[in-house]
Amino acid sequence: MTSTTEPPLVGPAPADRPEDRLDEVVARLRAALGEDAVTTTTDPAYTGDRAVQAAPGTRFALVRPGDVDGVRATLRIATETRTPVVPRGAGSGLSGGAVPLPGGIVLGLERLDRIREIDVVDGVAVVEAGVITADLDAAAREHGLFYAPDPASVRISSIGGNIATNAGGLHCAKYGVTRESVLALEVVLADGTLVRTGHRSIKGVTGLDLTQLLIGSEGTLAVTVGATVCLRPLPVARRTVLARFPTVADAAHGVGGIARSPVRPAATELLDAGTLEDIDLAQGTRLAHGTEAILLLELDGYGIEEQTADLERVLARARGTTRVIADEDEAEHLWELRRSGRQGGPPRVHLGEDIAVPASRLPEVFEALARIGETHGVRATALAHAGDGNLHPSLSLPIDEADATGGPPPALLAAADELVRTALALGGTISGEHGIGTAKQHWLPLELSETSRALQHDIKHVLDPHGILNPGRAL
Amino acid sequence: MTSTTEPPLVGPAPADRPEDRLDEVVARLRAALGEDAVTTTTDPAYTGDRAVQAAPGTRFALVRPGDVDGVRATLRIATETRTPVVPRGAGSGLSGGAVPLPGGIVLGLERLDRIREIDVVDGVAVVEAGVITADLDAAAREHGLFYAPDPASVRISSIGGNIATNAGGLHCAKYGVTRESVLALEVVLADGTLVRTGHRSIKGVTGLDLTQLLIGSEGTLAVTVGATVCLRPLPVARRTVLARFPTVADAAHGVGGIARSPVRPAATELLDAGTLEDIDLAQGTRLAHGTEAILLLELDGYGIEEQTADLERVLARARGTTRVIADEDEAEHLWELRRSGRQGGPPRVHLGEDIAVPASRLPEVFEALARIGETHGVRATALAHAGDGNLHPSLSLPIDEADATGGPPPALLAAADELVRTALALGGTISGEHGIGTAKQHWLPLELSETSRALQHDIKHVLDPHGILNPGRAL
Repeated sequence: MTSTTEPPLVGPAPADRPEDRLDEVVARLRAALGEDAVTTTTDPAYTGDRAVQAAPGTRFALVRPGDVDGVRATLRIATETRTPVVPRGAGSGLSGGAVPLPGGIVLGLERLDRIREIDVVDGVAVVEAGVITADLDAAAREHGLFYAPDPASVRISSIGGNIATNAGGLHCAKYGVTRESVLALEVVLADGTLVRTGHRSIKGVTGLDLTQLLIGSEGTLAVTVGATVCLRPLPVARRTVLARFPTVADAAHGVGGIARSPVRPAATELLDAGTLEDIDLAQGTRLAHGTEAILLLELDGYGIEEQTADLERVLARARGTTRVIADEDEAEHLWELRRSGRQGGPPRVHLGEDIAVPASRLPEVFEALARIGETHGVRATALAHAGDGNLHPSLSLPIDEADATGGPPPALLAAADELVRTALALGGTISGEHGIGTAKQHWLPLELSETSRALQHDIKHVLDPHGILNPGRAL
Repeated sequence: MTSTTEPPLVGPAPADRPEDRLDEVVARLRAALGEDAVTTTTDPAYTGDRAVQAAPGTRFALVRPGDVDGVRATLRIATETRTPVVPRGAGSGLSGGAVPLPGGIVLGLERLDRIREIDVVDGVAVVEAGVITADLDAAAREHGLFYAPDPASVRISSIGGNIATNAGGLHCAKYGVTRESVLALEVVLADGTLVRTGHRSIKGVTGLDLTQLLIGSEGTLAVTVGATVCLRPLPVARRTVLARFPTVADAAHGVGGIARSPVRPAATELLDAGTLEDIDLAQGTRLAHGTEAILLLELDGYGIEEQTADLERVLARARGTTRVIADEDEAEHLWELRRSGRQGGPPRVHLGEDIAVPASRLPEVFEALARIGETHGVRATALAHAGDGNLHPSLSLPIDEADATGGPPPALLAAADELVRTALALGGTISGEHGIGTAKQHWLPLELSETSRALQHDIKHVLDPHGILNPGRAL
């Protein structure tokens, strides 16, 4: 006689699977944090990020503590029960870093949303991890300051998530990535211990820089609950400049020309012909009309007229036609098109990428992109944070050519693979700013040596000896 | 019958002391690297740094490999023989980080002095660790670029040493410390393995950021042999401004005023009355005449006239009298006085410090400095990289009050201790930019929690399992 409730004869014993302990873990979490802070949910907002979803039916506990003590209690219970913990900011990631694990805890930090302090003279804000990045920036502006890192997700992503991925954005070539704006962290270790790292002064060299090690570690080393970040004075002037080019290669050479000049635009965004067409189709604009590529630039600071003159001279040499966008609404509209204009066109099966190359290799990477599109029979377009060599290619196919199983079509996967390998061959990286998560893990060995990966795993083991923190991600 | 050659009955067995194995280690090193690369020396240039000397008679092997393979061979032998290794850049440190250990190897990187590449479009240089920082800057200037980090030791310190200490300097409030200018490292691990970390593009988030972990680790994790560093375009204009204040508190408030304004000077150096007197005495200048404090500022970039006007307005509010130093020779002379003007006065027993506080606490730290000087009966003066809150106090006594034993007089040590504790109480740090080395180790527990220190030791153990890399330093 057989019974389906009998334990399977092969595979790990059921008692070792987090799924089977979840009810007990949920009960303990509820006892410690209160009923309201702990749920099991199938809300799609929590079953994935903006690019990757957990397998349907994945059971997990969603914990949203209201304070740091709640985070500590959650991690203590997770350590005691060896339950995997997926720290989660705002769920706006694009690499699968915050996707629930079966039987695990999703530790949502959205209720830790206080801006504790803004100090104008020190030029810092002290914030909790769940603060939405744009909210911090808005609060800083009331004091004549701004928060520089601005991933395109700035309105929906959180500071904690930005720190976990070392988020980039549009302003990095001039103002640095998230890393350059973080002075100190408050983190909870896997065992629930609260640790403060870093300092409030700009300088400080006491011991190993754990702050910097933690930034970009995608929740695999500790859970960030708070941070001291740098704010900068609002520039005295700001100006949007648009330049049109006869070819995308000219635009890329224009970026090289800027690098050779003394001008450092706050943003240098390159939109290729395909991207312009996509935006026009989705938004009813006419960006693609009579041009093969656009550089959308922001200048800021003192001497804005001199800066503009130098920039125009440089871009003219690369056959660019430059126009200052004097109307503020038009300028804001253009930036909004850059941030989210590609969304909303006719549905296609789409694969987004995030590679970076040294700025001098931009002409080559755009050449390669066109070639890869042809080879694999896919539409390949890109926009780029060109000032720092970071490309966001979009690989796509008409919906009727998609795999009926719902997985990405092999042609898109093959094109993405060739693109990533091309970036590496050009001295670049497999991820400019989105992180590794689960989506890019199979490419890690192409960029990092075995020794480097072994060191990283050993360092993780120091901070997370039971391997409960976002296991299987990033490393 | 007794014999003095018998092993001692207590303490570690002689076979465990590196001193007793040194001759054998030297022989192995010579066989591997050649006679010329390995010496035993009593040259004072190699028995210490610029602040700390090894005990007289300390025996050590000085190894100066001519290439990366020589560094690898040295570390392999060191690991096999469990010989402590002290990596050494140019010996210009101020915290004892490069002081020889008894029976150890001093691994001098001065012969790794090639600038391998400068790329204008990528804005990077690829250099070996032994390149003198000012030489890199000079080479960059030939291409219209500059290397921003500029510790006062810029003409005698090496890039490798700057990376080991995460060196600061005068330009950090605007351009960041060394950390912000390093994209990638080439390091040799304790066992001789060569590892490359980081990327050449500005962005890159693949795995844990070992580059950032290694920067500032003072030779305790690995030996840096090469680096890819950022270069910046030479600004279109540069201007030196000098402002005199009736009190040091006014000058400190002036710094706060700048922080509240949109002006970001490339350098904001505060010299208090005592520092001005010291310089005048040593150099025959008249800086102290009719003033209690000076801010020496550098503006750079576009809109230099607008910047100057805004700066003058801000400093006037803090009772500052501003003068633009139009004559370039006079300006260069003033910066040279700032960098090294204190040296050369009548001999005194002197203790230098390196604390940092949040910029808003500058008025308080100068107040505390005066009080501490009075309490302990020592002369207490300071100059400060005021823009980033980093002070270099000088505590001194007349030479005849010095301890006959040659050690620092207790009054100086007590004053330094109170000063460091004051910096911490003001939310600052025990070391702004010089590092911990051996000189500041006893203060570490005041700044870092036991958990933080334990994590750091465990991370060191991952990279240096036998504890041969600069043991007893930094952590």
